[in-house]
Amino acid sequence: MARISIIGTGNMGQAIAGVFAKGGHTVQLLGQGDAATAIDGDIVVLAVPYGAVTSIVEQRGESLAGKIVVDITNPVNFETFDSLVVPADGSATAEIAKALPQSRLVKAFNTTFAGTLAAGTVGPNTTTVLLAGDDADAKSELAGAIASGGLKTIDAGGLARARELEALGFLQITLAAGEKISWTGGFGVVA
Amino acid sequence: MARISIIGTGNMGQAIAGVFAKGGHTVQLLGQGDAATAIDGDIVVLAVPYGAVTSIVEQRGESLAGKIVVDITNPVNFETFDSLVVPADGSATAEIAKALPQSRLVKAFNTTFAGTLAAGTVGPNTTTVLLAGDDADAKSELAGAIASGGLKTIDAGGLARARELEALGFLQITLAAGEKISWTGGFGVVA
Repeated sequence: MARISIIGTGNMGQAIAGVFAKGGHTVQLLGQGDAATAIDGDIVVLAVPYGAVTSIVEQRGESLAGKIVVDITNPVNFETFDSLVVPADGSATAEIAKALPQSRLVKAFNTTFAGTLAAGTVGPNTTTVLLAGDDADAKSELAGAIASGGLKTIDAGGLARARELEALGFLQITLAAGEKISWTGGFGVVA
Repeated sequence: MARISIIGTGNMGQAIAGVFAKGGHTVQLLGQGDAATAIDGDIVVLAVPYGAVTSIVEQRGESLAGKIVVDITNPVNFETFDSLVVPADGSATAEIAKALPQSRLVKAFNTTFAGTLAAGTVGPNTTTVLLAGDDADAKSELAGAIASGGLKTIDAGGLARARELEALGFLQITLAAGEKISWTGGFGVVA
């Protein structure tokens, strides 16, 4: 069983914690008041908005060395709601990987709304978590932990594919915000 | 009923023709041998690879003025299979819109594999065609024609959202090419 720390206790942090708990993993859920608590997990999920990642990196960067760090962010420009705040040919994951060169970065959970993680389904489809990253072992370990919680996973490729996962996440958010889909719907993956 | 011309007789052109024919529309399917044939339709679907669009614009650009022109392309860099050949913050649709300033550009059909257009389903989901473009009436007219053929549509937003639709299309192609999903599967949309 994996030891998993989740930084962020919002609806995504809680839903992700639920998936791993269902799989029988040890889950440490860390909120803003837990800045002094040491990280237990070998897998650390940054379940915070993109804008909050920098301060976590500053506070906890050294303790994340060697660990699998999971970036779930959708770096939407919330002023315009019309683009992302990261380079157009890059991704939040690539930016975080630069800031945490000793960590094993994996993009995941940014294309699955919290409601679909909790339910385990997107409409008639089993919820599928798309992963991207350059560390194949890290992706594989994370995928195993997610699968044990009852969800499907697909390895979408290297770190470069985080650009497309973030475009997908952004699109899905704009569709839900525009009431074209619900926050319990979105993109289901049919293998 | 709409009059629809489809330039391109490959698997996408044929599948799109099938959708519109099912809706009772008049469909003109134009292949490479039909360069001298005048375009009948008020809606013109460019069902060709992105690299072939330039020559169509050169040959038929004037006759496309005022018409609804549908861009279905995924401008994948087929040498690297790791990025797109259009600006990272732009899209094929934006490039085509620049080349055809008198036409009413709509992005559509680039996130639906031919098999899912023919079947009308992506696994358990009704196939949903995502549209983007700045001309609301053009999107609405196209959406009506698609819906009459038994598919769902969602207006994903303005021309800027073509970037995200192309990222989604690219991602889906890489997943199918990598045998993570099948060419009859992909992203189903759950409203």
